[in-house]
Amino acid sequence: MQRYFVDEMPLDGKVIVTGENFHHIAHVMRSRVGDKHFLVFPDHTSVVGELLELTADEAVYGHFVKEDFTRELPVALTIACGLPKGDKLDWIVQKGTELGAAAFTAFPSQTSVVRWDEKKRRKRLTRLEKIAKEAAEQSHRTQTPLVEFASFAELLQDFPRFTHVLIAYEESAKEGERAQLVQTFEKMQPGDSLLAVFGPEGGFAPEEIAQFEAAGAKCCGLGPRILRAETAPLYLLASASFYFELSRGD
Amino acid sequence: MQRYFVDEMPLDGKVIVTGENFHHIAHVMRSRVGDKHFLVFPDHTSVVGELLELTADEAVYGHFVKEDFTRELPVALTIACGLPKGDKLDWIVQKGTELGAAAFTAFPSQTSVVRWDEKKRRKRLTRLEKIAKEAAEQSHRTQTPLVEFASFAELLQDFPRFTHVLIAYEESAKEGERAQLVQTFEKMQPGDSLLAVFGPEGGFAPEEIAQFEAAGAKCCGLGPRILRAETAPLYLLASASFYFELSRGD
Repeated sequence: MQRYFVDEMPLDGKVIVTGENFHHIAHVMRSRVGDKHFLVFPDHTSVVGELLELTADEAVYGHFVKEDFTRELPVALTIACGLPKGDKLDWIVQKGTELGAAAFTAFPSQTSVVRWDEKKRRKRLTRLEKIAKEAAEQSHRTQTPLVEFASFAELLQDFPRFTHVLIAYEESAKEGERAQLVQTFEKMQPGDSLLAVFGPEGGFAPEEIAQFEAAGAKCCGLGPRILRAETAPLYLLASASFYFELSRGD
Repeated sequence: MQRYFVDEMPLDGKVIVTGENFHHIAHVMRSRVGDKHFLVFPDHTSVVGELLELTADEAVYGHFVKEDFTRELPVALTIACGLPKGDKLDWIVQKGTELGAAAFTAFPSQTSVVRWDEKKRRKRLTRLEKIAKEAAEQSHRTQTPLVEFASFAELLQDFPRFTHVLIAYEESAKEGERAQLVQTFEKMQPGDSLLAVFGPEGGFAPEEIAQFEAAGAKCCGLGPRILRAETAPLYLLASASFYFELSRGD
């Protein structure tokens, strides 16, 4: 069943959908009165709604049945990535959204080959937001992840906002560090937040690690194999889903 | 440190590397006598070896130091994928290799849009084997996953070879099935094998699910969000690494 993030809360048991969503409903999906779709409201609640009326520019939904199914992780995971090459960030955001990330932050790491000037930044963020929205709809989420850009200094200043901060560090993996991720998950309670920071292809410079640690972050390994820059965030998110949603079942 | 899968076991504490590996060592990496590289032997043991001699077509390594680090999952996970569209299989194999899969099987599912004739099959398998080998080297594995093709009937006939067979079924996920994956992992002992079967974009047809179940497979959900065909295998592999390598620590 198709899923739409609508911009307004329902009024008198109905909601009017316009703009891009309307276009998709009417012209891409060629929906008809009586069709049912998932609708997600600005407060992240979701319902199955019935298409009651279709005009030239509006779709009216009603007969709402609340979805009794939690689609969101009980903890908020933010994935911060040192700018990687090519389109890797596109698919970190796409796959990461499917896997339940609450937010993504792109930041320039010392070892990032790529640089984002002001113009590129705006363009890339717009594109990444679109990817996140589409992936959230496709994976039946009730929340679209935020996508932001931060300087290295801003990222560090942001650490206190989170209950936990982990740095995925290849050297930790090489040294066989295997406890930190499990210990962090075990400590986390529903509603807690975790910022997980990942390097670009070249990994982090030792000075960066020192700054992260000085700001309160812990380094962690993600298993005994060396993961690519784009694979590591997905490992962490899938592990979190397995732990919090299948295994522990908060 | 670069990693090479060499074709021969060492003799008298030395091994001679030729062919493609030699080309990479001598011409791509421009290695010099004294450089150290990881070498993985046909019996899956790995060492750090020193380059002792470099001729026009041979690289001779010696002074081996054994790697005291298990890079491979304690259980053997085979990922079977209903043929997906485009290059999705390429990256399932690349990322799946990083995440520790023991083998990949591609099979035509009823809902697969793609068809592989004899010629395409040979070409695609050769390419996927190359991707698996490169990803195994890059992720520092001591084993290159097998890549195979099977008909639907052959896949079913293969089920008894495995300790456990799981089917990732979207309907299970939608119904909130959350126990099967955890229960299966909990039952598994080091050396056990798991075949995990994934559908193409359209998911499986109900008749296919019936045949899988009749052959002894169990259906399982992979969390509350709907994952794309190429994301689901990575979820299972990352979860297995988290469970067996970080959490349980066999």
